[in-house]
Amino acid sequence: MSNCFGQIFRISTWGESHGGGIGVVIDGCPPRIPLSEKDIQHDLDRRRPGQSEIVTPRDESDSCEILSGVFEGQTLGSPIAILVRNNDQRPSSYNEMKDKYRPSHADYTYDAKYGTRAWHGGGRASARETIGRVAAAAVAKKVLAELYPELEIIAWVQSVKDIEANVNPATLSKQVIESNIVRTADPNAVEPMTALIKKMRSEGNSIGGVVQCIVRQPPVGLGSPVFGKLEATLAQAMLSLPATKGFEIGSGFAGTQLTGAEHNDAFHMEDDKVRTTTNRSGGIQGGISNGENIEFKVAFKPTATIMTEQKTVDNNHQDTELKGRGRHDPCVLPRAVPIVEAMTTLTLLDHALQHRAQCGI
Amino acid sequence: MSNCFGQIFRISTWGESHGGGIGVVIDGCPPRIPLSEKDIQHDLDRRRPGQSEIVTPRDESDSCEILSGVFEGQTLGSPIAILVRNNDQRPSSYNEMKDKYRPSHADYTYDAKYGTRAWHGGGRASARETIGRVAAAAVAKKVLAELYPELEIIAWVQSVKDIEANVNPATLSKQVIESNIVRTADPNAVEPMTALIKKMRSEGNSIGGVVQCIVRQPPVGLGSPVFGKLEATLAQAMLSLPATKGFEIGSGFAGTQLTGAEHNDAFHMEDDKVRTTTNRSGGIQGGISNGENIEFKVAFKPTATIMTEQKTVDNNHQDTELKGRGRHDPCVLPRAVPIVEAMTTLTLLDHALQHRAQCGI
Amino acid sequence: MSNCFGQIFRISTWGESHGGGIGVVIDGCPPRIPLSEKDIQHDLDRRRPGQSEIVTPRDESDSCEILSGVFEGQTLGSPIAILVRNNDQRPSSYNEMKDKYRPSHADYTYDAKYGTRAWHGGGRASARETIGRVAAAAVAKKVLAELYPELEIIAWVQSVKDIEANVNPATLSKQVIESNIVRTADPNAVEPMTALIKKMRSEGNSIGGVVQCIVRQPPVGLGSPVFGKLEATLAQAMLSLPATKGFEIGSGFAGTQLTGAEHNDAFHMEDDKVRTTTNRSGGIQGGISNGENIEFKVAFKPTATIMTEQKTVDNNHQDTELKGRGRHDPCVLPRAVPIVEAMTTLTLLDHALQHRAQCGI
Amino acid sequence: MSNCFGQIFRISTWGESHGGGIGVVIDGCPPRIPLSEKDIQHDLDRRRPGQSEIVTPRDESDSCEILSGVFEGQTLGSPIAILVRNNDQRPSSYNEMKDKYRPSHADYTYDAKYGTRAWHGGGRASARETIGRVAAAAVAKKVLAELYPELEIIAWVQSVKDIEANVNPATLSKQVIESNIVRTADPNAVEPMTALIKKMRSEGNSIGGVVQCIVRQPPVGLGSPVFGKLEATLAQAMLSLPATKGFEIGSGFAGTQLTGAEHNDAFHMEDDKVRTTTNRSGGIQGGISNGENIEFKVAFKPTATIMTEQKTVDNNHQDTELKGRGRHDPCVLPRAVPIVEAMTTLTLLDHALQHRAQCGI
Repeated sequence: MSNCFGQIFRISTWGESHGGGIGVVIDGCPPRIPLSEKDIQHDLDRRRPGQSEIVTPRDESDSCEILSGVFEGQTLGSPIAILVRNNDQRPSSYNEMKDKYRPSHADYTYDAKYGTRAWHGGGRASARETIGRVAAAAVAKKVLAELYPELEIIAWVQSVKDIEANVNPATLSKQVIESNIVRTADPNAVEPMTALIKKMRSEGNSIGGVVQCIVRQPPVGLGSPVFGKLEATLAQAMLSLPATKGFEIGSGFAGTQLTGAEHNDAFHMEDDKVRTTTNRSGGIQGGISNGENIEFKVAFKPTATIMTEQKTVDNNHQDTELKGRGRHDPCVLPRAVPIVEAMTTLTLLDHALQHRAQCGI
Repeated sequence: MSNCFGQIFRISTWGESHGGGIGVVIDGCPPRIPLSEKDIQHDLDRRRPGQSEIVTPRDESDSCEILSGVFEGQTLGSPIAILVRNNDQRPSSYNEMKDKYRPSHADYTYDAKYGTRAWHGGGRASARETIGRVAAAAVAKKVLAELYPELEIIAWVQSVKDIEANVNPATLSKQVIESNIVRTADPNAVEPMTALIKKMRSEGNSIGGVVQCIVRQPPVGLGSPVFGKLEATLAQAMLSLPATKGFEIGSGFAGTQLTGAEHNDAFHMEDDKVRTTTNRSGGIQGGISNGENIEFKVAFKPTATIMTEQKTVDNNHQDTELKGRGRHDPCVLPRAVPIVEAMTTLTLLDHALQHRAQCGI
Repeated sequence: MSNCFGQIFRISTWGESHGGGIGVVIDGCPPRIPLSEKDIQHDLDRRRPGQSEIVTPRDESDSCEILSGVFEGQTLGSPIAILVRNNDQRPSSYNEMKDKYRPSHADYTYDAKYGTRAWHGGGRASARETIGRVAAAAVAKKVLAELYPELEIIAWVQSVKDIEANVNPATLSKQVIESNIVRTADPNAVEPMTALIKKMRSEGNSIGGVVQCIVRQPPVGLGSPVFGKLEATLAQAMLSLPATKGFEIGSGFAGTQLTGAEHNDAFHMEDDKVRTTTNRSGGIQGGISNGENIEFKVAFKPTATIMTEQKTVDNNHQDTELKGRGRHDPCVLPRAVPIVEAMTTLTLLDHALQHRAQCGI
Repeated sequence: MSNCFGQIFRISTWGESHGGGIGVVIDGCPPRIPLSEKDIQHDLDRRRPGQSEIVTPRDESDSCEILSGVFEGQTLGSPIAILVRNNDQRPSSYNEMKDKYRPSHADYTYDAKYGTRAWHGGGRASARETIGRVAAAAVAKKVLAELYPELEIIAWVQSVKDIEANVNPATLSKQVIESNIVRTADPNAVEPMTALIKKMRSEGNSIGGVVQCIVRQPPVGLGSPVFGKLEATLAQAMLSLPATKGFEIGSGFAGTQLTGAEHNDAFHMEDDKVRTTTNRSGGIQGGISNGENIEFKVAFKPTATIMTEQKTVDNNHQDTELKGRGRHDPCVLPRAVPIVEAMTTLTLLDHALQHRAQCGI
């Protein structure tokens, strides 16, 4: 069903932008994993609104409460329920959107599908929905760390509109990324990217860009042919995020410009391990991780909600115009970084547990 | 699980390249749908090897047999099992691959994951695996046609390496596509694309490209936030196909170069219908189809199996070299077209039945 | 996964006896169903502890809060999260059970499976766990009422130990059942059953019995061969309840004493409807409802927690003795009635939506 | 979905009584398990029609073919497809049933649900459907034997109508059961049971009875609260079998006649293992196996198809009469024994793999 993700480490997310809160239930979590609210809060803070001057100013502490599944500081093996209350709700900001459909937003399709919608702030189509994913992934991260202590998942903003970061994925550091508010990995790109985002905000406009992600030291053997290929699950995971328009694994669309002789990743032995000389496969072959870095890119479109007048229709099916109001991100990318990492974590852990189930490690 | 696709119209595919055959079981098919082997055979013939001079010469009729679920020419509502025997098997062509891992193929990762592999022809990682998908989709197509008689799914080869088709998606015709062996939609591109594929084959090399797909006259309302967003399921479906490296819905990666004011699709009324003036959303907003054409692209890498000497390792973890043998496609694109259509059909039908379940049409 | 139930109307329950609370997330609920906390509270009150002198005196109001999925009094089609806080927690009552395994309880097996357990009150094995089911079923009941307004689900206590109610399922009324604290359908059985339960409590002992359930005016066509047979789902649903030991549909074990000629339910026409003259099938044939009353029985064992000294072992694997403490039900039957109804409701609705998905009503 | 069983070792069965055949696809099977058609054939022969004078004389060799998933005598980890052709088909025997609904059979409900049915021999409601289950379980048995070499699953006919076997579950032997055509465990019951079945056949009548099953030396820890409780999955598994009407785990309905003090299974230490002194729990506590023998009973009603005239209706909704024809079992019990064992095997293995996934053994 549509609000569940994973086969074994299975999460069910819930919650609208306005209302009682946002949360997640995790079923199938291994027992005896040390877990506290602090573990989860750290990641929630990375996706929190209001964390810097270039993201939405909505004032939410996004404090989480673990309601079940943890006892004396350890997971029980029973479902873990996590709740984050909505605090800074301003439904009145959305009065005009009650009747008018925001262009390129979910207003019209939700109405058409369900015959109703939570017009206070976008309901389930709001980016607040991702809180449940990030909270679940914070738990998943701890399990994954016990299974594969060396594994590292790092995402960063690779481009903002036409400003591209100059980055060497092999050497980039999480520290650099977290030290700037754009969450790019190229120190030289921070200033122009920040400036562009601020310019967009001041114009009431918005921009998108590309988030890139690398998984270092992944185990060999994750992913299950054929519909559970690792890149297939990653693609579903990423395209399930709000505002995403594209996904590339390894060489991606650029790989179509090469011949097989140019594109193939030759194998060689290195320290008793099978390695590939290049990594156009992006760490996945035949749907299964080969131990090389897993590398992929996700395209985020410019935020749909802008502050300039746009042509649209209302729910009485009359042509009209709409000017955005409320508190919105001119650019979702800085906050998309932890969300991309979260979906990657959930994907890897679930495949790791599937692998353990079928192959016994 | 990994060889099942769909929540309601649920398919389970099976079969290796060499062995008893390839097939699929469909659970949850609506009853009383007229169905014969001829319906299925037509689509199998479109993906069949040996169908033209630019695809693999493996000589398979790929004749299908419906083993269950159909009675007196109609579906029963019980599982439909479809079987295609393997005929032209030449395991000896693969003797060298018994020990050596083909670069950028699934040989190494299958061995690493399962501790064994069907080295006769790639086993489950062979493109023959897609027979089950195409057969199931032929059934799905008949159900979909009853639900949405106007709906049309058309895929074509948009580029072969750097040769791009010049196509107007709004007006292109399936007839043009099926009338040329490359399955491109641009008559002027047929000759250069064909020539390039032949050149690659003569050199023992291979190429990839991009398949584009359009769904015309889709219903409004398909897709289920959040993990079952229509584009998320399509992305999973496409990235589960062999040799795929990327997926774009609507504006895709290029959409990151626009501002929100440029990118948003304005709404307007047209013949009492809510329409968008542009379609950068690719027919999907908030994860739900909005009634505009659904448009996406899929990147296929150059075929991994090439006939030139490559560095690799063997299953004793020794460095070695390998030169491909056997019958292989220099370019999978012409046969990828019906497979992309098949996965699109399966995705749309399953979402249509999910929608019927929850919303009662 | 183990804490989810249903294919389309899919619930995920969570929560331990002690801790933040108990709850459920419902995915796949049809939109535009009127729903308020009052609808849910009514059913929670029927399963609430402390509701009468013959059930556990734990003092819980079990007030529910709808956190998501409902807007302006109607369901949105998005996940409905419901939370009930735990209030009257007395972990100290369980100090002795920290180390000692209660006989016939889940203490030992939870410890053996997970290597840990929430020894405060039984954790997930507590009957409090069923709050999530009852809350979800209250929502399901409203959807089912829209689909089948005539349908009626009635459960009652058919026997307490060896005291059997004398009941005509065809004519019994819900009013009689709800008017007595045992929830039996036979007014003459109320007093002896009540007396026996009180006697057991005063002796620190416990008893079980049988809950019977009837579904009146069910639609024809619910249930899906072969693993989703209606009686198979009901059996799973009932045996997933705490303390259940048996399930019978229609003639049950007694039916094995008849010959086919005696057992078969002859068909005849009645008011243009296909009817059966007898109903040994219990309303289900071939796994599908035939429109007759659905009738089944569920055996509940005597409550495991008793107040007399019992031999047991501790978690250091030493023989020892244990005397129960804390607040416990001498007989779960009165509170089992709404729980059996709840699981029946969830089962029927999910099959109704499955049927709509595959067969379009 | 309805023709799939299991979460990890996931089977999809298919096939009607008449038509191309019957089969199963197994997804999620561990790799490198030695497997041949002989392993499967042995169990198919135990459920085969025509195996003795007291079962249906339909002449089917039920020879199986493994179509995929096995290579060089070992499982690959990819889907295992198994096919059994239908041979001795006599559709003409069913001419009368084309229009008339057999009482207590699935004819009417299939027609009502799907608007069509395979009236040649009962289609999917035929006991032939269980071939797929038995074939899959033969594979599961081999996997289970690798995980738990000591584990033993034994079912037998405990009663035929009112003739009860006198059996000590602790000491009974599979050899005794397989040495008599009734498959009872009590040598003294063989003759009267056989005589009664023959009498019923000669009268064109039928009978049912009870199959009992014991699992010896099961591991501790199988089963997942709450909806995946081991007894809940077993109950679903058993009630999904044709002609079943009841299920009891451990003390079953009789357990409701005891007080808690009488019913509880005291714990004690024995050879460093936690044991229970009695086993009214039937080897399962809190939904999880406790290492004691798992014990349960399944009620089978008398076969619906009898050779005497019965009142019924036809598919034009007219009252009529019907006299059975064709080849049928007067008593399904002897052939039910391997089927009950099969579903037990599938249930245990799937829970074993689930346990491995979540808890890492």
